[in-house]
Amino acid sequence: MTDMTGSPLTSANVPGAEQAAVEDTLTRNVERSFENCSDPRLLQLMQALVRHLHAFIREVRLTEDEWNSAIAFLTAAGHITDDKRQEFILLSDVLGASMQTINVNNRAWKNATEATVFGPFFAEDAPEIPNGGDIAGGAPGQPCWVEGTVTDTEGRPVPGARIEVWEADEEGLYDVQYGDDRVAGRAHLYADDDGQYSFWGLTPTPYPIPHDGPVGRMLEATGRSPMRASHLHFMVTAPGLRTLVTHIFVAGDTLLQHDSVFGVKDSLIKAFDQQAAGTPTPDGREFNGETWARTRFDIVLAPAEADTAV
Amino acid sequence: MTDMTGSPLTSANVPGAEQAAVEDTLTRNVERSFENCSDPRLLQLMQALVRHLHAFIREVRLTEDEWNSAIAFLTAAGHITDDKRQEFILLSDVLGASMQTINVNNRAWKNATEATVFGPFFAEDAPEIPNGGDIAGGAPGQPCWVEGTVTDTEGRPVPGARIEVWEADEEGLYDVQYGDDRVAGRAHLYADDDGQYSFWGLTPTPYPIPHDGPVGRMLEATGRSPMRASHLHFMVTAPGLRTLVTHIFVAGDTLLQHDSVFGVKDSLIKAFDQQAAGTPTPDGREFNGETWARTRFDIVLAPAEADTAV
Repeated sequence: MTDMTGSPLTSANVPGAEQAAVEDTLTRNVERSFENCSDPRLLQLMQALVRHLHAFIREVRLTEDEWNSAIAFLTAAGHITDDKRQEFILLSDVLGASMQTINVNNRAWKNATEATVFGPFFAEDAPEIPNGGDIAGGAPGQPCWVEGTVTDTEGRPVPGARIEVWEADEEGLYDVQYGDDRVAGRAHLYADDDGQYSFWGLTPTPYPIPHDGPVGRMLEATGRSPMRASHLHFMVTAPGLRTLVTHIFVAGDTLLQHDSVFGVKDSLIKAFDQQAAGTPTPDGREFNGETWARTRFDIVLAPAEADTAV
Repeated sequence: MTDMTGSPLTSANVPGAEQAAVEDTLTRNVERSFENCSDPRLLQLMQALVRHLHAFIREVRLTEDEWNSAIAFLTAAGHITDDKRQEFILLSDVLGASMQTINVNNRAWKNATEATVFGPFFAEDAPEIPNGGDIAGGAPGQPCWVEGTVTDTEGRPVPGARIEVWEADEEGLYDVQYGDDRVAGRAHLYADDDGQYSFWGLTPTPYPIPHDGPVGRMLEATGRSPMRASHLHFMVTAPGLRTLVTHIFVAGDTLLQHDSVFGVKDSLIKAFDQQAAGTPTPDGREFNGETWARTRFDIVLAPAEADTAV
């Protein structure tokens, strides 16, 4: 026997017909309470939310203690959230809800670059750097030269595409986690007339998502790791093209199969080639005997209308 | 065509087979990430949560803007919540999730009194009053004599049953909403040796749930009223018996069919009989020419093991 979603029910949690009727009636009454909503999309969202939420409660036979724990969890998540810490995004991320939303809204489109999660660490108003500039802003880590092109799916360059990049330092911290107002490890730049871009960043290193809050405690209680695979964030926008929010990942990283937010896609794994100390850099920059790395990420943007295509 | 939960899909939101496979794979990967959880119940809860949450996102084809709105909603709910305001309970209440949890955990059991929602306004450590005492504590409203018995489902009295009662004043405010530390409109008392109890409270009046926060804005956006049907809260506990959390409602209240938290059950609607000024009171109390009311609520407690019965 299965319930409405196909989940197995054990004999211990099969409600009798009378009980099932009580539960069904409530769900229908709640759905019906939204019928005066004048916005058809909002009506659809609320009714679907009610149906799925009630189906969950009924399937697991949620206890009152568990309901209390859920309220306490959401309350703790709300209280730890401020303008620099977003526990609800972390929660959505570790439940794969963020990635599923990305999937729904970024269907595969020809050879367009795949999207992945936005994450909680983007900041508006990151400084502009020239093409070939440095985003590090003093953040510690191995220098990494990143270059590529921005084109559409017909291979045409996209001059002036705006490229936002952000990343953690080698300690696994984003600037917004430093506890001061420094801006580091983030910037925006524009593709040149041939659609080409390049910048100096830091070779990505693995780090845990913030795990000193309720989401971290949930991961620990369920035997999950908070670690993210090493990555570098991109958001690329250009008129008439679908905005791309993505990362690139580091080939060979042992965390690629266990990313805590389910962000890894094969097409986004790139070789980050280690360069021996003293190897000449693309722009003549000197690192005084330190190693550096380089990678290439060619970005292909789908047309804006790709969002609504089936 | 329908999706996995039986909901209709329109042609505009039917994902192709390749897209559906991408979405299925993600959901399975997220479920699998919990497989190391050593607590089988927690494992079940998290995997079911993931399945239903992903089914919701996929069914409605949640947009990124809508996802952002959901994050902002939860954040605002977290920030308005403090030790006297509980927006997440309100949210659960108006989505019928609280009432459905009550249903799941309080199956009909012979003639046991039905349960309803707990609500966000219970406070620990309400003062004790003697049987026949007054819970009002100065809160404004029409005096109301409440009396009844506490028995088990075999009709045996339950001496010493602990009865917590709490209610809003005639302005629709609970004491915790006064903005000071007054305790009013709440108390606890114990059934006497014959299982009988009585107290003076206030005749319940309708009031809106707190609607100056995100839940109130959601209700307004969806054309729903924040009004609750008039009611008086009870929580009754006794050793070996199932704890009863319930209200009684006022017969004739026009809001009985539109309670904002779906708490009304026919068996909980009681006659509140209006008494003309000067009518002698049960305990000889004088109201100096003011009207008063009276009601009767006989409470029947299920055995504790009723929770786990099918």
